[in-house]
Amino acid sequence: MENRVHNFNPGPATLPLPVLKEIKENFLNFSDSGMSIVETSHRSPLFDDVLNDAVNRTKRLLNLDKNYHVLFIQGGASLQFCMIPMNLALPGRPLNFINTGTWSTKAIKEAQIQGKDVRVIASSEDKDFSYLPHDYTVDKQASYLHFTSNNTIRGTQWQQFPNGEDIPLISDMSSDFMSRPIDIKPFGLVYAGAQKNIGPSGIAMVIIREDMLERVPNTLPTMLKYTTYKDNGSLFNTPPTFAIYVIDLVLTWLEETVGGLKKIEQINKQKASLIYDVIDKSDIYHGTTEVNSRSLMNITFRLPDKKTEELFLAEATQNGLHGLKGHKSVGGCRASLYNAISIDSVTALVTFMQEFEKKSI
Amino acid sequence: MENRVHNFNPGPATLPLPVLKEIKENFLNFSDSGMSIVETSHRSPLFDDVLNDAVNRTKRLLNLDKNYHVLFIQGGASLQFCMIPMNLALPGRPLNFINTGTWSTKAIKEAQIQGKDVRVIASSEDKDFSYLPHDYTVDKQASYLHFTSNNTIRGTQWQQFPNGEDIPLISDMSSDFMSRPIDIKPFGLVYAGAQKNIGPSGIAMVIIREDMLERVPNTLPTMLKYTTYKDNGSLFNTPPTFAIYVIDLVLTWLEETVGGLKKIEQINKQKASLIYDVIDKSDIYHGTTEVNSRSLMNITFRLPDKKTEELFLAEATQNGLHGLKGHKSVGGCRASLYNAISIDSVTALVTFMQEFEKKSI
Repeated sequence: MENRVHNFNPGPATLPLPVLKEIKENFLNFSDSGMSIVETSHRSPLFDDVLNDAVNRTKRLLNLDKNYHVLFIQGGASLQFCMIPMNLALPGRPLNFINTGTWSTKAIKEAQIQGKDVRVIASSEDKDFSYLPHDYTVDKQASYLHFTSNNTIRGTQWQQFPNGEDIPLISDMSSDFMSRPIDIKPFGLVYAGAQKNIGPSGIAMVIIREDMLERVPNTLPTMLKYTTYKDNGSLFNTPPTFAIYVIDLVLTWLEETVGGLKKIEQINKQKASLIYDVIDKSDIYHGTTEVNSRSLMNITFRLPDKKTEELFLAEATQNGLHGLKGHKSVGGCRASLYNAISIDSVTALVTFMQEFEKKSI
Repeated sequence: MENRVHNFNPGPATLPLPVLKEIKENFLNFSDSGMSIVETSHRSPLFDDVLNDAVNRTKRLLNLDKNYHVLFIQGGASLQFCMIPMNLALPGRPLNFINTGTWSTKAIKEAQIQGKDVRVIASSEDKDFSYLPHDYTVDKQASYLHFTSNNTIRGTQWQQFPNGEDIPLISDMSSDFMSRPIDIKPFGLVYAGAQKNIGPSGIAMVIIREDMLERVPNTLPTMLKYTTYKDNGSLFNTPPTFAIYVIDLVLTWLEETVGGLKKIEQINKQKASLIYDVIDKSDIYHGTTEVNSRSLMNITFRLPDKKTEELFLAEATQNGLHGLKGHKSVGGCRASLYNAISIDSVTALVTFMQEFEKKSI
């Protein structure tokens, strides 16, 4: 099939093949306009249709109440780490964080750089971020409670979100956005870099609740204020038009071909259980996280020693299974099973893992 | 030819057809990797090659000295309006600006929002920004002198850059970047949103001189510091990989097919003179700028009345000539003649303008 490999990259990651084919097919002539999507004005009715469609599909897929706004912002999740405290910290009221790994740590650091009153109310650093901490007390006066819904590097994922009581939740959902239904009500803001489940890199989606916008200080630079994006429909300046176009195609695929978030959640559970089953029955693979903290998106595992891991990765690549190397900060192996990873790819990985084990013993 | 129109959009703008064809051709299988460029890891050797090639071509094309760094930053020129004063304003030393239109005005506003000591040392606002002011005195203690090299909306362009004496120049070159050779030495920083001459929207290129990096305050958020991009080769977080890939292809076309910046400057002069000739000999078209301030990139002109302008634009569209409407803030007509606009497209426009005039008289 077009010589495509099985791509388990953690992000930028594999995208649905029908989406890629549609982009290719229409690349020189977008919607019969006589120009490429990358040459189309962001102020044209044609692009308006794309942007509005992406926003409306997001609202339908996530079942958003009317008081939530969908924004497209450049800079990825990393810019959100600094924009969130800048925009949403309330004077004299601390920021609460749960620290579950690299990305939470970066979010905490950016709030500290700004001199905010940062309180880490729970952390799993004591056990190398291999679990999700459930023992914490949220400050009654907190501006918000920030957590990372899925930890791409450590392979953990909140199956039930932290309880913020009445404090608004803020979550970095970069690596499991649109992979399952969520109840949006407790959330003041949800953000996600696109390059895992919904599109190419270079853009973040931000879902923000109306009341959060009242917190935005007038004194912020224009491009760093959420109100700028809300007031201008994400068109204050030229947005990444190609990225929004691809996101719209991926969301169309998710809504119309897959059948929505409940359906993709079932598929994602099925895919993950195929791999976890191999790990749990294996003598050579072992998971790196506590079982009840496991991620459906990023499955992290080790082999008995570094040499065997290197052999495993090399042979996987020879078998057309790519992107299985763990993050450089932790080593080991990782299979990222985002929405666009097909059951076929997972089955190919399962078969390879079983054969590799048989051969190794 | 693929039903493509003549696309005079001001940005996002037309891109070289061979570049678009190459993207299309390889979209499902980038460099024989078995994955699309949008699915390729930004930490892979394959993408490293793309990024490094784009940086090296930029250095060769602009003939950059070793003490200049080439950075890729999300957020377009609009984010640069706020990053520049944040990073490069020196304590107690004013910022000097020359105001030549909408974009300069926005850059000034963002510096003011930060409470910087902003001094507008020259402005052409008195005559609706229809000329470039040459009467100014640069503060001897200025942190820098900022100007817009080409004014997309007003149709003016500095043919000789302002003289900053020993003060570093900073220029927004979004709409004429890579359209002509420049002498980089007086510049502390040059920036350009990509979506006019070098690629798709969603990325800015920043050329910064080594000594400017010493000014960057340590207290800034990580994503807003130039040093973050310099120290990490623009890979602190996931960059817009597709945009960088397209930029590399456009720069390859510019260097290898066109033959570099001297060559493209000749072509751009030739293209612009074809249109200005029609205007200067015409009874119905008149340019909106002083002759010696004219832009080679964006040719702005009016017709006798609004009704005739609307007719002109409607008939142009019927003839396959798109994107000729002036910016909504000024009205009228505008032909944007960026690098990728072919002589064929310009000739088609010239013919149409002449026939439209003949018919109207």
